Amino acid sequence: MAKEKILILGAGLVGSLLSIFLAKKGFKVEVFEKRPDPRKNDVLGGRSINLALSDRGLLALEKAGVTRNLDQVMLPMHGRMIHQLDSQVHFQPYGKANQAINSVSRGLLNEYLIGEAEAAGASFRFEHKCERADIDNSVLSFSTGGKPKEYGGDIIIGADGAYSVLRASFLHSDRFNFMQDYLPHGYKELNIPAGKNGEFQIDPNALHIWPRGKFMLIALPNIDKSFTCTLFLPFEGESSFEALDSPEKVATFFSEVFPDTLPVIPNLIDQFFTNPTSSLVTIRCYPWSKKRSLLLGDASHAIVPFFGQGMNAGFEDCRLLDEIIDAEYPNWETVFQTFEKSRKPNTDAIAKLANDNFIEMRDKVADAGFIWQKKLEARIHEKYPDKWTPLYTMVTFSNMPYSKALEQGNRQESVMRKIREVYPMSTPPEAIDLEKIVGWLD
Amino acid sequence: MAKEKILILGAGLVGSLLSIFLAKKGFKVEVFEKRPDPRKNDVLGGRSINLALSDRGLLALEKAGVTRNLDQVMLPMHGRMIHQLDSQVHFQPYGKANQAINSVSRGLLNEYLIGEAEAAGASFRFEHKCERADIDNSVLSFSTGGKPKEYGGDIIIGADGAYSVLRASFLHSDRFNFMQDYLPHGYKELNIPAGKNGEFQIDPNALHIWPRGKFMLIALPNIDKSFTCTLFLPFEGESSFEALDSPEKVATFFSEVFPDTLPVIPNLIDQFFTNPTSSLVTIRCYPWSKKRSLLLGDASHAIVPFFGQGMNAGFEDCRLLDEIIDAEYPNWETVFQTFEKSRKPNTDAIAKLANDNFIEMRDKVADAGFIWQKKLEARIHEKYPDKWTPLYTMVTFSNMPYSKALEQGNRQESVMRKIREVYPMSTPPEAIDLEKIVGWLD
Repeated sequence: MAKEKILILGAGLVGSLLSIFLAKKGFKVEVFEKRPDPRKNDVLGGRSINLALSDRGLLALEKAGVTRNLDQVMLPMHGRMIHQLDSQVHFQPYGKANQAINSVSRGLLNEYLIGEAEAAGASFRFEHKCERADIDNSVLSFSTGGKPKEYGGDIIIGADGAYSVLRASFLHSDRFNFMQDYLPHGYKELNIPAGKNGEFQIDPNALHIWPRGKFMLIALPNIDKSFTCTLFLPFEGESSFEALDSPEKVATFFSEVFPDTLPVIPNLIDQFFTNPTSSLVTIRCYPWSKKRSLLLGDASHAIVPFFGQGMNAGFEDCRLLDEIIDAEYPNWETVFQTFEKSRKPNTDAIAKLANDNFIEMRDKVADAGFIWQKKLEARIHEKYPDKWTPLYTMVTFSNMPYSKALEQGNRQESVMRKIREVYPMSTPPEAIDLEKIVGWLD
Repeated sequence: MAKEKILILGAGLVGSLLSIFLAKKGFKVEVFEKRPDPRKNDVLGGRSINLALSDRGLLALEKAGVTRNLDQVMLPMHGRMIHQLDSQVHFQPYGKANQAINSVSRGLLNEYLIGEAEAAGASFRFEHKCERADIDNSVLSFSTGGKPKEYGGDIIIGADGAYSVLRASFLHSDRFNFMQDYLPHGYKELNIPAGKNGEFQIDPNALHIWPRGKFMLIALPNIDKSFTCTLFLPFEGESSFEALDSPEKVATFFSEVFPDTLPVIPNLIDQFFTNPTSSLVTIRCYPWSKKRSLLLGDASHAIVPFFGQGMNAGFEDCRLLDEIIDAEYPNWETVFQTFEKSRKPNTDAIAKLANDNFIEMRDKVADAGFIWQKKLEARIHEKYPDKWTPLYTMVTFSNMPYSKALEQGNRQESVMRKIREVYPMSTPPEAIDLEKIVGWLD
């Protein structure tokens, strides 16, 4: 029996990786993308420039067999570099010394995955904007170069992002639960170029954060020795994008709240008024499948970027779907239902964690109590690694289900509250009874 | 200055009442409805046949000046008539002896309101299906009799229900928060006709409930002496619409769980397989306005029917909007923003209350502890009317903001839990220290 023809909507990171998994299984895979081929063009359009690749994403790439040369484009970040208002910096490690998240270029990674997918036998059609998905007959309608075109297949997978066209067709069917929820904050990217001698202008081994309470700036390194900064700021209100409506106000704002960025962002005002301000959305929906169609990645569970897990979760989707196909093929109904049922509690969990982490990044990281806690947690984890693992480590440096990480994180969090009641911050570390603390977990 | 032209989408209950308020203010009001004129047709299509009109709805009708002859089509229901599995019934009053909710026919009330709106100067265009709303230019596109047609206005109000076309156009704009959430239960209407001598076959002064834990049947009286029953049942699972797939199974199911309905529903099997099974959705969104367009009623906050507040909340929307126009006209931006900002917490509250009340209706009402509590609450309320008001009374027999009712209800609920710990159900009523209980509220 010839294997099914699978149509994938979206040649972004998740669609491209999925096409590798499926092509390697012997399916006929066709991927449709509204944008031009990124290998022939420069424009990425409205998406972040770099991303943090961590264990979940790496495992998925490994399982797909696509890790060759990857380390040449990854820049490991071993912790957060906190920039205080007085321009002092201090470093907070993410985990143990050998643990890091990796700054990767969205564009380079995407091009690499498309190349690997073609090598595995998948075919790509760019500049195909999907207009409509007929889920009853598994037919997709596109406009391409102004002309309508239809493609039919056996299976449709929507990896077409937060504004998925496949999901829009689900929305019009009965009993489809859906939520889109915007943060009051938007974001704007700004570039710190390489220095005069082609060197990094700030430390490339960290993710830089300027935490300022209600808003923040972050920066991730790029392999061309530049950094991409992202300013997260409310759309409206006192300190907001709306309020920063003149070059003077932008200059004053940066000199007041991010003074140490002025020497390294030369054309700040130009960038600020040229670069777009984008919104931040969380998408939740269910079911993820109807008939022979399935939503995947951001199309079913877009999250805010504050845990660096959007791409990692999408890649994990691909790995898990691949495993379920191994177990249940050719029963696609079972494949889809097993996938959505087992995966949904975990993407709900990472959505919540990503949201919570915004407050941690923009506010708590600057707090002495938070730093004290983080150090204590690291000590507990070192002594009782099976009992206590920092939440960040469970999410970032493990592949345990996100919902289990959230659950365990909540348990640890309430013990931590108890610790703070019992031990003042002045307590010398060796005076804290770690065994007793770990006992409170039960 | 000539007053603005206001286009209203939807000539259902809310759209019709709103058109009365606005026409009476002197606006040029045009109402568009996809269905035919209900006064010339019989079909209502997929909506419940009767509804419970209570204080909030009545106050709005009063303020609009449209209560004439209303009492001739209202059937007061003074409480719940609980039908046990053994066919015994017992009555639970909703409030005091003079308090009742009113069963009204959706069709008759709608026709009455359309007539009053026309009398007030509003014009109606039926069989106009809105295809698209251009909120930038306040233009609506319709198909009518197969032909496209456009209408422009100064203000657009979407009172076009849970599947609002105006809201769909909001959905494609940036930063519009939206949620649609379906219950796992569906509903099916069944008719208990009048008896042989044209009499009610069961007590017309109550809302009848057959609470069965995971599902329930209810019945509301109609002025033709029939009752409309609604079966609320999970779509899938052990006891479900899916499982009831043969006449035998339906007959067995009803004889087992609703035995006393068999004598009064003569053609049960026919009705069961002829009448549609509908779904139950909660809609939440924000903002409710963009430029000169506003969503109202189910279009912005559809809720499940278990508190009998869907229509009442929509009517209250109209009354509140009318008051805000009085205060802020002609500043429509302020009108819309004042309305959405003040109203949203209240519609969120009634959405939650409606959801919670499903469990109360289908399960708790049959419980001895629940009945004991209700009686105790009535006694506390009688003695301390300013301190304690049963939640049902605050929602149904008052016009206090829903969010305040929810808040006060939560406070009373936690005191009630404390009462249940202190006083066993065997406690004679006079041995319960009401003053002490009321003190626990603080």
